[in-house]
Amino acid sequence: MKDKIIIVGAGLCGTLLAMRMAQSGYEVVVYERYSDMRKGVADAGRSINLALSARGLKSLEAAGIKSAILEECIPMRGRMVHPLGGESFLSLYSGREEDYINSVSRPGLNLALIEEADKFDNLTLHFECKVGKVDLKEASVEYTRDGKTHTDQGDIVIGTDGAGSVVRRAMMGQTTKLLFNYSQDFLRHGYKELSIHPGADGKWKIEKEALHIWPNGSFMIIALPNLDGSFTLTMFHPYEGEAGFNTLNTKEKVKAFFEKYYPSLLPHIPHLYEEYFENPVGTLGTIKCYPWQAYNKTLIMGDASHAIVPFYGQGMNASLEDVRVFMDILEAEGPNWETVFHKFEAARVDNASAIADLAIDNFYEMRDAVDDVAFMRKRKVEMKLEQQFPDYYSKYSLVTFKPDLPYSEAKARGRKQDELLLNICQNDNFENIPLEDIHKQVMAITL
Amino acid sequence: MKDKIIIVGAGLCGTLLAMRMAQSGYEVVVYERYSDMRKGVADAGRSINLALSARGLKSLEAAGIKSAILEECIPMRGRMVHPLGGESFLSLYSGREEDYINSVSRPGLNLALIEEADKFDNLTLHFECKVGKVDLKEASVEYTRDGKTHTDQGDIVIGTDGAGSVVRRAMMGQTTKLLFNYSQDFLRHGYKELSIHPGADGKWKIEKEALHIWPNGSFMIIALPNLDGSFTLTMFHPYEGEAGFNTLNTKEKVKAFFEKYYPSLLPHIPHLYEEYFENPVGTLGTIKCYPWQAYNKTLIMGDASHAIVPFYGQGMNASLEDVRVFMDILEAEGPNWETVFHKFEAARVDNASAIADLAIDNFYEMRDAVDDVAFMRKRKVEMKLEQQFPDYYSKYSLVTFKPDLPYSEAKARGRKQDELLLNICQNDNFENIPLEDIHKQVMAITL
Repeated sequence: MKDKIIIVGAGLCGTLLAMRMAQSGYEVVVYERYSDMRKGVADAGRSINLALSARGLKSLEAAGIKSAILEECIPMRGRMVHPLGGESFLSLYSGREEDYINSVSRPGLNLALIEEADKFDNLTLHFECKVGKVDLKEASVEYTRDGKTHTDQGDIVIGTDGAGSVVRRAMMGQTTKLLFNYSQDFLRHGYKELSIHPGADGKWKIEKEALHIWPNGSFMIIALPNLDGSFTLTMFHPYEGEAGFNTLNTKEKVKAFFEKYYPSLLPHIPHLYEEYFENPVGTLGTIKCYPWQAYNKTLIMGDASHAIVPFYGQGMNASLEDVRVFMDILEAEGPNWETVFHKFEAARVDNASAIADLAIDNFYEMRDAVDDVAFMRKRKVEMKLEQQFPDYYSKYSLVTFKPDLPYSEAKARGRKQDELLLNICQNDNFENIPLEDIHKQVMAITL
Repeated sequence: MKDKIIIVGAGLCGTLLAMRMAQSGYEVVVYERYSDMRKGVADAGRSINLALSARGLKSLEAAGIKSAILEECIPMRGRMVHPLGGESFLSLYSGREEDYINSVSRPGLNLALIEEADKFDNLTLHFECKVGKVDLKEASVEYTRDGKTHTDQGDIVIGTDGAGSVVRRAMMGQTTKLLFNYSQDFLRHGYKELSIHPGADGKWKIEKEALHIWPNGSFMIIALPNLDGSFTLTMFHPYEGEAGFNTLNTKEKVKAFFEKYYPSLLPHIPHLYEEYFENPVGTLGTIKCYPWQAYNKTLIMGDASHAIVPFYGQGMNASLEDVRVFMDILEAEGPNWETVFHKFEAARVDNASAIADLAIDNFYEMRDAVDDVAFMRKRKVEMKLEQQFPDYYSKYSLVTFKPDLPYSEAKARGRKQDELLLNICQNDNFENIPLEDIHKQVMAITL
């Protein structure tokens, strides 16, 4: 009999991990605090969407479900930028046609993973079971169902219970024993979701296959397409100041603000006011910690160990990549949990930190730079380089389209490339520099 | 009637703050979880000692108790370095005779502050009252005394309850409302206290007026003198590896280790083994957070908001400086708490972060560099510069002997100076460079 694995949290990371471990023959038991999505999900087709890209796809492929999931996605080939008072333009993500990202519904993807996971006889999903306590050393959990408290013990416990992880909290409770390093860092910006409804014909009112951005200096709105013809909009605004969520607290103020800063978007969102005042403001935070394991018995992965801000579209992809890397190590080592956990930490901690930092970088880039002259020139040069030189990848492409390159290398190489290209593009005569020369300079960068 | 101030924690920071606010006429109530030290303190004259320097003294002076406290201190004029297999040498802290630091007993100083604080009619000290809950918005606390729960409400609450602060934990509990940023970062080193007993004549067995260091690459022991003729030793060792606390777990291993690495110290500590196995290993951590206040009603200061590692001897000094700066702002603004709290944060958050970083720097410097050639040359050059040029202050002196210079400026300037001087001292001919030239180069550094 193979080891019994308790997984806390049946989100994207937890269900994929459960599937993979069940495929490998382990006895898998999953506890999820929320109810079974198969009983009905509010707005499964709309609601929050995410950008699924190469790293996530590679992990889904290893589980044998990539093509099924891709059927539920909408390709996004670039950023459609809508500058205030200017013409909209499409900035492709890559010069290579095959490099695009995919808009996918979070609940839709989660539902698909739950359905796949439930096909295994050696995998049990328990919903509406809220894990309260975790015994890190004994690999046991205490959970409540229908108001009653139960316990379960496994050979190991893996926490995939997200940014507010109960398993991580148990580690925090043993700070001095584990020398548990931890940081939570919030932006002074929050987010609020709005939507563009489908057109009268059921079709998308603006370009379907793009991630739209309305940049405005220190604040912006983005839009991702949904299968039903709608778009989910996300406002990224500060809490305070003229554009602050705390300032925009009456219909009149919201109206005047959108007329001034989002005039091209306003006609598409006649229901703005009800959504604006109904939907909550979410926080944008980065969580880092170390170690990710305790007593060789309990491990955390996904958002539980590395929550990041959404500006690189990599939060989900990083979590799914955790699963693939973990399974690669497990398959090589067998269930020697001490070795597996330490190799997993060695493989992932620095990379998780790197994508967290990159996501913060991109917050500033999306907010401030997408309509900046040197940045736009740089995007054009990058596009040309990617079209003409198959070995060239921009920082964005290194992160998004090179799933075999660790995030930390993508970060180091990408930052150096950006610095070089931005320097070149500061020069008004940059277009006279032969592309071959720029390519040579970029490829000469060593880490 | 002036506002009622609830202070949580009667440590060094809390008692000094209580005194100062009572001097200013506020109604002050202090809750402390431990018992009244006046009823008896184990080892008040020995036990833990700390280095009191200019910033702390300036804060005590503002409270009118500097000279009384100095009577309980032993001056330490430099570091007495005991290299393994080499001659001991004294490295003065400064080229100026008046610049020295002071070894003071932590419980002794705390006791003196409690006695001073208790002289005020408008100040009440409650011991053995463990604060459990804090209502940040209502400025109220819930505490238990003799197993019974009570509550008290003030106009504001100030948490001076140390690194494990309950008041800060209440802020952590409202993470998303307060956008509470927080980090805890532990070294992979811990500490353990030992001691050198007084000689048969009741005198100090090694040089009294110095901070002693036995450096050993990645680990070390330091000693500070006590009034009773003893020294408190602190081992700073890793948890793991040859020198690890977890490795040195038998008398035989400890003996062999000390014979190999601390041969010059061993004769002074015949009682080593009982102390080694009785005394616990403490963690060495840095805590940073932001904001330090909630709802303009509750504030944290001292270790509660910025715990640091002890390697600059500034933890207590920084906390006492908090009190002085807070009182300066309060006296200028009056009890407009919103303004006072925000000005206090603006004045202190970056400086607390700077001294935290400097203390980490000094961990590596004390451990690795005190017997390094370039570092020793640099100390000699610094010594000469300080003797000949009254306007020159080394990084250490900027932090330790310039109480009017904010920590963040001391950090920036000090790091630049160190870089310059170390570069100069890498050169084997550095002694041929005229001191005036070096002085000019150093003074040309701008921030």
